[in-house]
Amino acid sequence: MKLLNETISRIGKIDNSLSEETQKRLDNLTKPQGSLGRLEDLAKQIVEITKIRNPKLEHKVIFTMAGDHGVVENNVSAFPKEVTPQMVYNFLNGGAGINVLARHVGARVVIVDMGVACDLKDDPALIIKKVNYGTRNMAKGPAMSKDEAIKSIENGIEAFEWELAKGIDIVGTGDMGIGNTTPSSAIVAAITGRKAEEVTGRGTGIGDKGLAGKIAAIKEALKVNKPDPKDGIDILSKVGGFEIGGLAGVILAAAAHRVPVVIDGFISGAAALIAYTIEPKTKDYMIAAHCSVEQGHKHALSFLGLKPILDLNLRLGEGTGAALAMNIIEAGTKILNEMATFESAGVSGKDK
Amino acid sequence: MKLLNETISRIGKIDNSLSEETQKRLDNLTKPQGSLGRLEDLAKQIVEITKIRNPKLEHKVIFTMAGDHGVVENNVSAFPKEVTPQMVYNFLNGGAGINVLARHVGARVVIVDMGVACDLKDDPALIIKKVNYGTRNMAKGPAMSKDEAIKSIENGIEAFEWELAKGIDIVGTGDMGIGNTTPSSAIVAAITGRKAEEVTGRGTGIGDKGLAGKIAAIKEALKVNKPDPKDGIDILSKVGGFEIGGLAGVILAAAAHRVPVVIDGFISGAAALIAYTIEPKTKDYMIAAHCSVEQGHKHALSFLGLKPILDLNLRLGEGTGAALAMNIIEAGTKILNEMATFESAGVSGKDK
Repeated sequence: MKLLNETISRIGKIDNSLSEETQKRLDNLTKPQGSLGRLEDLAKQIVEITKIRNPKLEHKVIFTMAGDHGVVENNVSAFPKEVTPQMVYNFLNGGAGINVLARHVGARVVIVDMGVACDLKDDPALIIKKVNYGTRNMAKGPAMSKDEAIKSIENGIEAFEWELAKGIDIVGTGDMGIGNTTPSSAIVAAITGRKAEEVTGRGTGIGDKGLAGKIAAIKEALKVNKPDPKDGIDILSKVGGFEIGGLAGVILAAAAHRVPVVIDGFISGAAALIAYTIEPKTKDYMIAAHCSVEQGHKHALSFLGLKPILDLNLRLGEGTGAALAMNIIEAGTKILNEMATFESAGVSGKDK
Repeated sequence: MKLLNETISRIGKIDNSLSEETQKRLDNLTKPQGSLGRLEDLAKQIVEITKIRNPKLEHKVIFTMAGDHGVVENNVSAFPKEVTPQMVYNFLNGGAGINVLARHVGARVVIVDMGVACDLKDDPALIIKKVNYGTRNMAKGPAMSKDEAIKSIENGIEAFEWELAKGIDIVGTGDMGIGNTTPSSAIVAAITGRKAEEVTGRGTGIGDKGLAGKIAAIKEALKVNKPDPKDGIDILSKVGGFEIGGLAGVILAAAAHRVPVVIDGFISGAAALIAYTIEPKTKDYMIAAHCSVEQGHKHALSFLGLKPILDLNLRLGEGTGAALAMNIIEAGTKILNEMATFESAGVSGKDK
């Protein structure tokens, strides 16, 4: 609990002292005021988060955290559980969606085993932060102990700080875990107060019968465990997942180190809710990458007051949406840093 | 008219012969089917346009075409007319928004003088395709002669073909011209049948009085000139602009050469309507970059049946939205080309 408490205590407010100056600079670039819309807003937010006048997002890092889920025994996923470790190897071999998109935007992918249900082969690129071999079935009782919940968050913090030493200017969250839309829906329901039906989707592609069973499992988990909507650690332990806890740790650590954090899709959104419930100031360090097809995601974002950058019908996770959104955010910082001003370019200003 | 007619005659239907094969390949990549949403659709569209199984969008080119507008004497813009040539020099010096964003996504910007109202200084990077020194005031009569309209389109085709020799895998449209939202609104009104009020916005940032005058000028131009909604060349000559004609030429040439064309914002949308009116098959070669703040844009897109990739409150033009969208389209093609399959990665498929 010490690392978590220290991290929370380091999270400050974002800094508005450079906001006016930054707005003036944006307004003085050779374009009609505000005409680059969201790019300008993002540039300003990055300045406020980092306290850096000319932030450069050179080191872009995506944490793709993996874990297994006991609730898969309720047939909540269209894919078998062994896909979790298989996909970890796919990440390590560079063949997954997140690898392709991270390469495309010049980001580094950090793969973390937070709680895969088997021992993975050694690989220098794999960070082992395994809390346990998958969670227990949340439909029958708590998914993990309270100590495990804290450990998952702290392991996420440690993974972030380990990578921070190599440089992180902006971080994205990503997940892999067969069955993990189910705990994510339970978390979103617990925190936002929405019904299970409203926040549960088809995940990797279950049919109508599977969806009904998934909703039933989520309802049962909420009934059996009664998570406290105000207590992020309680919720995580009762209806969460190890990779979700790890991502909450990444988000808390990013805020503590004033690093902007790009929230990927639905599972990352659930992790963001956990982080927010633990420390509401984290919200100002978050940027929502995209609006997922998974229907609970929009409720998570609206609860957090975050407006997604992209809407591309994505529902893969892994950090894929975060990678694409990072590229747009970086474009915003380059606008701030690289565009000519009316004066420097000798361009006349507005008439009236 | 010969070059235009030849170009039109070369425009074929897009090719669906590879669609089924491409869909199968997408479905066999290590992700739930369809989970990369729009990226997958875009990859498929690029295959259909180019007839290439593994299209690589290495050579990304944005045409930023500049022209002046006689209607500025009606005070339709917040910026003075001299900004058009000043911004051309800014483009050539690499300091404008489009330069920053094109560098960011690895695209080449081609600057074309289609009809700036003064002679520009020689620059090896500037292509001179000047049709005339700005258009005439469309509120008083035709903006240009029919011959000039044809010449502007043909000059756009020539500019495209000149650059094609250096390599163009995907092309984006961009514009610069103080006052050019006014003819664009007139074009959108003429073709879609919408009222001037519905398709006219504040452009670079005019106030309420300026907006009323702008709408009045557009109404007057439509009343005085009576453009034929079915005749793109007639519309272009009566209420268009030289850069708009040039961009219509780029779109026609791109379709003729099976090159995907990314339509930027409002002015590019007007050019797309002109190209579509001349040859409806061009539509299938178009990809809408973003949804502009300028309110006529959504009517143009809905008339064309195009769904924008981004919605970032942009209203700068120059090709800025096209640059960002190209990056997303390229991401889609990389997904198709670079991701591992279930078989190659040894990942289990769906359970049921």
